[in-house]
Amino acid sequence: MAHTQTWSTAPAEALRAADGFRLAQVDPRSTPGYHGDKKSAEADLAATTARLGELQERLFAESTASPGTGSVLLVLQAMDTAGKGGIVRHVVGSVDPQGVELAAFKKPTPDELAHDFLWRIRRRLPAAGRIGVFDRSHYEDVLIGRVRALAPPEEIERRYGAILGFEREAADRGIRIVKVMLHISKDEQKARLAERLDRPDKHWKFAPGDLDERALWDEYMTAYEVAIQRTSTADAPWFVVPADRKWYARLAVAQLLVDALAGLDPQWPPADYDVAAERARLAAS
Amino acid sequence: MAHTQTWSTAPAEALRAADGFRLAQVDPRSTPGYHGDKKSAEADLAATTARLGELQERLFAESTASPGTGSVLLVLQAMDTAGKGGIVRHVVGSVDPQGVELAAFKKPTPDELAHDFLWRIRRRLPAAGRIGVFDRSHYEDVLIGRVRALAPPEEIERRYGAILGFEREAADRGIRIVKVMLHISKDEQKARLAERLDRPDKHWKFAPGDLDERALWDEYMTAYEVAIQRTSTADAPWFVVPADRKWYARLAVAQLLVDALAGLDPQWPPADYDVAAERARLAAS
Repeated sequence: MAHTQTWSTAPAEALRAADGFRLAQVDPRSTPGYHGDKKSAEADLAATTARLGELQERLFAESTASPGTGSVLLVLQAMDTAGKGGIVRHVVGSVDPQGVELAAFKKPTPDELAHDFLWRIRRRLPAAGRIGVFDRSHYEDVLIGRVRALAPPEEIERRYGAILGFEREAADRGIRIVKVMLHISKDEQKARLAERLDRPDKHWKFAPGDLDERALWDEYMTAYEVAIQRTSTADAPWFVVPADRKWYARLAVAQLLVDALAGLDPQWPPADYDVAAERARLAAS
Repeated sequence: MAHTQTWSTAPAEALRAADGFRLAQVDPRSTPGYHGDKKSAEADLAATTARLGELQERLFAESTASPGTGSVLLVLQAMDTAGKGGIVRHVVGSVDPQGVELAAFKKPTPDELAHDFLWRIRRRLPAAGRIGVFDRSHYEDVLIGRVRALAPPEEIERRYGAILGFEREAADRGIRIVKVMLHISKDEQKARLAERLDRPDKHWKFAPGDLDERALWDEYMTAYEVAIQRTSTADAPWFVVPADRKWYARLAVAQLLVDALAGLDPQWPPADYDVAAERARLAAS
């Protein structure tokens, strides 16, 4: 498992939701497996994203020659203000945009609601050689779907099974799925929401509905715990990333992505032309 | 016109293809309007992309409140190896991926060929508040289209007019169009293609067809010159960016984007809720 020196335990191990997972056992202010601080994390993030960029280019290159090349799918789920946007900007944004497919799933449209909940998700699975990123995902349908009773209990129940089948199928087709819950504390959310209300350049990031969701904090925590317990599999594990410290969350997710890409072991494709002959043609041109 | 201190003439002015434009008058090794060097360009690029990121966030924010918010479309055209990929990675890649819509246009599919050449292009115009980037574009249809006679002369002729109408319509809908030709010399292309042949990790970027296109260099230069002469308008100007020095091309394109976004004068949207009331609700939560 590739990790920098500052990790004593790789995040893929330290953060993975295993059997019997309990959300209450994860402290949102902790930094599992990492013994550096904010300052060292900055240097480690730079090194980790550089490595991510190299792997991404190699994977992309391989896919130009081999349509069967794998891909990586990062699923991001979190309560408001937990830092999904920061992960997209500072981790995903560190690699070549040509190799990234970003899908932000909002409240479903009437057209989307007329289909099964996985319909809009399947269409955004990453192509070979790409890093796909889901900013929210099919998990909304068992999170807000459950908390707000947007579907009957038996439909919510059905969805856990449907998700397992869907993710297994995607994994079988070569997609490495990395599911991340950014886990912040209710207090930290309060501070971050207060900042949005205090700064006019952040007002657009706040909506009164955010406080309605916050009022259901405990229900959401239960919904997350159940979803994670029921859908963390070998093919598509959940990683619960403490997110009160943004620098930790970004570094941990970057490392999870590096591990996923490294696991695909991408290779530069060999030339499918005669290099010497082309060199001679070029010299004469 | 916003520009950093090192620019004596803003690139929007120095690089714009005006009436009577002649490609031969642009030296691919020159650095019009810029009196710094590779080293100063590095610092200037960091400052320029930081400014670009700020403007992008503000534009994106405005669009969340006002569906009529404008957008920017960067059209990138160039001969092979001129550095489109580097612009995407180092300039476009510097801003938040959530605000970018990147479209790479390859050889048209049979489905695309069954429609007018602008069909696939229209579908990828950027949404309000976004920076759209076309890596190749509808101009291929009057570049390779002309050089390789992929369509009859009267159809090529028709396309210049169709492009003018299309771009005017997009501009009327609030899209600021910035068309960039990265202009490299034939010698520089030779050196860059040689590097691709010399390095196994670059072999995938080379295809023998690249040399077939290179053999038609003069025909391509004529096709570019004609396309630029006929379609550089107030609404959608062409900028011919000398590209033998990558650091110059990246800095110039970053500044062109900054100017385009600044021209939209994006504003943080005011809160559409009672800030004091929400603060009180938050405090009580």
